[in-house]
This record gives sequence, C-alpha cells and structure tokens, in this order.
Amino acid sequence: MKKHNFYAGPSILPEEVIQETSNALFDFAGTGISLASVSHRSKEFDKVMKDAQNLFLELLDAPEGYSVLFLGGGASTQFAMVPYNLMKKKAVYLNTGTWAKKAIKEAKLFGEVVEIKNEDYTTLPKSFEYPADADYLHFTTNNTIYGTEHKKDFFATVPVVADMSSNIFSRKIDVSKYSLIYGGAQKNLAPSGVTFVLIKDDILGKVDRKIPTMLNYQTHIDKGSMFNTPPVIPIYAAYQTMLWIKKNGGVEGMEKMVAEKAEMLYDEIDTNELFKGTVAKEDRSYMNICFVMNEGYENLEADFLKFATEKGMVGIKGHRSVGGFRASTYNALPKESVEALVKCMREFKEKQG
Amino acid sequence: MKKHNFYAGPSILPEEVIQETSNALFDFAGTGISLASVSHRSKEFDKVMKDAQNLFLELLDAPEGYSVLFLGGGASTQFAMVPYNLMKKKAVYLNTGTWAKKAIKEAKLFGEVVEIKNEDYTTLPKSFEYPADADYLHFTTNNTIYGTEHKKDFFATVPVVADMSSNIFSRKIDVSKYSLIYGGAQKNLAPSGVTFVLIKDDILGKVDRKIPTMLNYQTHIDKGSMFNTPPVIPIYAAYQTMLWIKKNGGVEGMEKMVAEKAEMLYDEIDTNELFKGTVAKEDRSYMNICFVMNEGYENLEADFLKFATEKGMVGIKGHRSVGGFRASTYNALPKESVEALVKCMREFKEKQG
Repeated sequence: MKKHNFYAGPSILPEEVIQETSNALFDFAGTGISLASVSHRSKEFDKVMKDAQNLFLELLDAPEGYSVLFLGGGASTQFAMVPYNLMKKKAVYLNTGTWAKKAIKEAKLFGEVVEIKNEDYTTLPKSFEYPADADYLHFTTNNTIYGTEHKKDFFATVPVVADMSSNIFSRKIDVSKYSLIYGGAQKNLAPSGVTFVLIKDDILGKVDRKIPTMLNYQTHIDKGSMFNTPPVIPIYAAYQTMLWIKKNGGVEGMEKMVAEKAEMLYDEIDTNELFKGTVAKEDRSYMNICFVMNEGYENLEADFLKFATEKGMVGIKGHRSVGGFRASTYNALPKESVEALVKCMREFKEKQG
Repeated sequence: MKKHNFYAGPSILPEEVIQETSNALFDFAGTGISLASVSHRSKEFDKVMKDAQNLFLELLDAPEGYSVLFLGGGASTQFAMVPYNLMKKKAVYLNTGTWAKKAIKEAKLFGEVVEIKNEDYTTLPKSFEYPADADYLHFTTNNTIYGTEHKKDFFATVPVVADMSSNIFSRKIDVSKYSLIYGGAQKNLAPSGVTFVLIKDDILGKVDRKIPTMLNYQTHIDKGSMFNTPPVIPIYAAYQTMLWIKKNGGVEGMEKMVAEKAEMLYDEIDTNELFKGTVAKEDRSYMNICFVMNEGYENLEADFLKFATEKGMVGIKGHRSVGGFRASTYNALPKESVEALVKCMREFKEKQG
C-alpha cells in the first residue's frame, strides 16, 4: 500500500532527491567512488559545497554580505551558538513554543533574556515593546509542535535572528530583514544531520568572550564551511532538494503549492464537524497542521488514528504535548497525500452515520 | 577502471554497507518510507539506535558502566566538549600531531594544559612524567597526518581520554583503561556526519561551570543519544558497518587483516629503493601509511603520483604538511587494493630501468 508521509521531521523529501542520493552512493559525480567514501577535500565535493551555498543564496534572493554554512550539531547547537557569538548583555526572545523555550534556556547562560509571550501558544505575538538596546531579537518562524507560523517577515530595529528549521524555502522572505537565519535541515531541505546557517558577515566580532573554535561562526565562514569534515551525504541531498525547488518554480512555486495543500486540509477541518483546529486562524501554520476531535467526538480519536493508519497515513499522531493530530505538509509532500487524508476524514465521518 | 580508495577520511566503507544504505533509502525496515524521511522517533529507527549502541559495546567487549552516544558536530566539537565537561583545573595532553594540537587549543580555554611532546612527530611519547593531580590525560591513538599510532593501550593513574577517530575497531583495546573514547566516524565506521562517544558514566558531574545543553554529555546520556534529531543516515550506515565487522571476525578479525595489509605495504616501502617511510618503525600506523621518495629519487614524486593515478589509485597524495604519499589502509580497504598499490610501486621501479 502507498504510504503518505506526514512526519514532522525528519520528513518527506522529493523522490528524485532520494534517487540521486542513492545513485551517488554507488558512483559520485563520475569518480567511481561512493558519496559515502569520498574525501570532502576532493574537487568534486568541493564543487557540491560551493554550488549548494550559491543556490541557497539564489533561491532566497539574498543580497550581498551574507555567508551560507552547512554544519553538524542540529538547530539545538545553534541555540547556544547564537548567544555565544552575538549576546553582549541582553536579547529579546519570542516565546512561541517548545523550540523557542529551548533557545531561551541556552541564551540565559550568556546574558539577560527579555521574553515576549502570549497567554498560550495558540496565537503569536505580533505587536509588542522591546528594549531598543537589545543585542538581537530571536524568533521561531514556524512552531512545529503547536502549529503556528509567522507568515510575514518581522521588522525590528535590532538585528533579527530566526530559527527557520521548519519553514525555510516555503514562502518568500526578505533576507535583508534578517541578520542570521538558521535551522535543522531535516524538514524542507535534507535528511537529518546538517544545519543551515545564513549569516550577515558584519554582525560578528562584537562580543568579548572566548568562543570554542567549532562554536565560532567566524571559523566556518573563514573556511567556506569546510573547517572540519562536513556531513557529506546530507549536504549532497540538500543540494539536490534545492535543484528540485528551482525546477519547480523556486520559492515562489513552493509558496503556491504549500498554501494550496494547507488550505485544502484546513477547509476540511473547518467543515467536517468531527474535527476542529487548535490555533487562531490567522496564525495557522502551512507546514504543521494541528487538529483534534471536535466537542462530543473526543472518544473517536483512537478510532480515527487506526482508520487513517490503515489507509496508509503515516506520522499523523499529534505531539504528546498537544495531543490529537498533526499532519505536516512540507514542500515535498505531494498534493495527493493531502487529498488522501481529506478523503480519510470524509469517509470516517460517513462511517459514523 | 576499478578505483582503489586510499582516502584518509571520509574513506572506504564495505560494499554491503553502501548497498544496505541505498536499499534503506527506498524502503527503511519494511516501513515503505525512505531512511532519509523517517522520523527518528519511529519504533524502527529507535531499534536501530539501540542495536547500534549495544553492538558498539559488544564489539569492544566493554564492561558495565559505559554509555554510547552518536552525535553530530564531529570530533572537532569533542575537542571542546571534553574540557567543558571534565576539566576542573588542568589536564595532560600528548601533542602528537595536527589533531592533538587542535584538541589542546580548545582545552586551554578551560584550564591549564600540560603538554607532552617529542622533538618531532615521527615518534610517539611512550614514557614520561605527568602531574598526579591532573583531571585527565588526553591522547590521539592514531595520527592520520603523520602516520603514527599507539598500538598498545595506555595506562595512567588519571582518567584517560582518547581520540580514536582513525583507528577505532582496528585493534583490540581494554576499554576499562579508558574513561572516554570519541571519534569522527568517517574512517572505520560510517560516512561523515556522526561522532561516536563511549563514556564512563561516573566521570561526569565534577565540574562547576554551566555547560550549554548540547555540549553536556549528561544531556545525551539521559536521552539515549536522542535528545535532538540525530544524523539518521550516518548512524544507520555505522550500524551496518558494525554488523560487517562482527561477521568478519569482530575486532580480532579486523586486527589480523589490518596488520597483514599494512605490513605488506611497509615491506614494499622498506625494500623498494625508490621509497622510504617517514616515521620510526615501532610507531608506524597500520591505518595511514606515509612514505616519500628516497634520497636521490625526489624528482620522481610527481611522476609516481601520475603513474599510480592512471592505474586507479585514489587519494594517495600526502597531506600538505608532510608531503610525499599517504595510503590509508582502513578496515574496509580490500587486500587487493594494497596489492595493486604494491604492484604499482614495483612497476614504477622497473620503468626506471
């Protein structure tokens, strides 16, 4: 049976990315050597790294003055690297969910954190005051667990740092509004094991503390992201995904497809009386669609999960901290998978008579 | 033409590891989902992680009280994590080459480093005094760039920390002599992107400093190496390599094959008048075999590189800091590849007449 992959991350990648990566495992770039066994210093991999960095900038239409890094350690390591490199005294953090809280925890090791938080995580803070002398403002552009998303760029008078782990390349952004964008690549970009960092070169060098070499962004900028052995296979796959994005209309093309898929599913949630969404409509994520059983139908939750699983839906159980269901509709998820889930929801409703 | 992969790292892996990894890219563990796109929280990947940790302990015949972690960030991140977690005041570091020096640089951020160093890097310090109150003693068991290797375990009265990036699983070790063993996996174990850490649980919790969450070994021990999204593909490949090691006689089997291959090549270096080794015989590495043109034949270096490359040898150019040649003969390198290189050296000598 065909499986529909709604995992929140690691998550679905385009079929041709899988095929190209597999091909390269047997013969990378005509070298006769496996991608798993090729030196990262070979001219063939060096080209992949540079091409991937350039395509990253091209897809985001980034202005001059930014560097692209592909590092190990995950976004969780970035939670510490950001304040290690940027925090002199204090920073503003939007507390919009689980990942934001983890970032805040690390920042507090390095200075004062001014937290901005709404009453709960079903809405996003959009208008608020913050200290004008903050070193930077940090926010998570999409909250995978609660299913909220900032669908507009954020303007601030201090440098803006954004964790875009779960919605990079899904909508057009104005890079010039950001000083640093980072994310684990294992949602819209690559298999797990690589972290992207887009960094404005002039924001570094302003803190006094001694930074361990691997945690210092400057180390990696100076060496073109090849200071140490990079995660070769995930970077290769990321490059293939970016080629796929380019071929499919670039970020603009993704944005259109993503909105279409998400609206299709939200429509069903809003019209099917068995289900209801969990967050404020204007803050709904186009990447992670959270819903629960409607009042009066709570007892059907396990039944629906079983029903949908039998029809090939994978990964739709909600995160344990929210419950219910979560369907992740990343760039590479085919429209057919959303149609299949909607069909499931309708059939399940009909079954109840 | 068949290529013989002598890269120093990332480096050759067993053919069946490549095949199994490729298979899993299309269907991981019968899930119908790609290994690149499967949740690390799925029960199927959870089993891979646990099986890989257990097999790691089994292959090394480790006693109770040790944890195995598979992390991102490379051995270079470990250079900082080791002192971050273990250094109270001072530590002893054997300075045996490029990688040791990098580890020393990071340790100096956290306390006093007592360096032990021979006059140059062609021999290894084997007998020396060190402060009895040091927090630990750190050494690199195999020096990939200079081609030296500690082929015996090291006994010390303080906790021993070893970087085994380039010779893990190539010879039997007595784990009980070590408090922490770490390494980048991209030589004897996996594609790049995963770092192994074998850590004795009771050495932690002795420093006062605040440690960023991702740099704290305890974080990863508490979560079974799944605190954050681990590098799924490299870990899967590492597990496949360990299964291959087990099938081929375990570490004892590797040790026998490794010695046979290395001695075959050193024999040629010692008997072929065109070449000579670069390090003291008793400290020669069985993993990275460094040699240069003998006196009087220096002008033939470029010719030999061209000759060998035309015969399918890949990655034999020496590191820029040593020059000459380096043939890496890791576990997975077939004996036929060493035979092919030896044949090259003989034919090249005959060509000179």
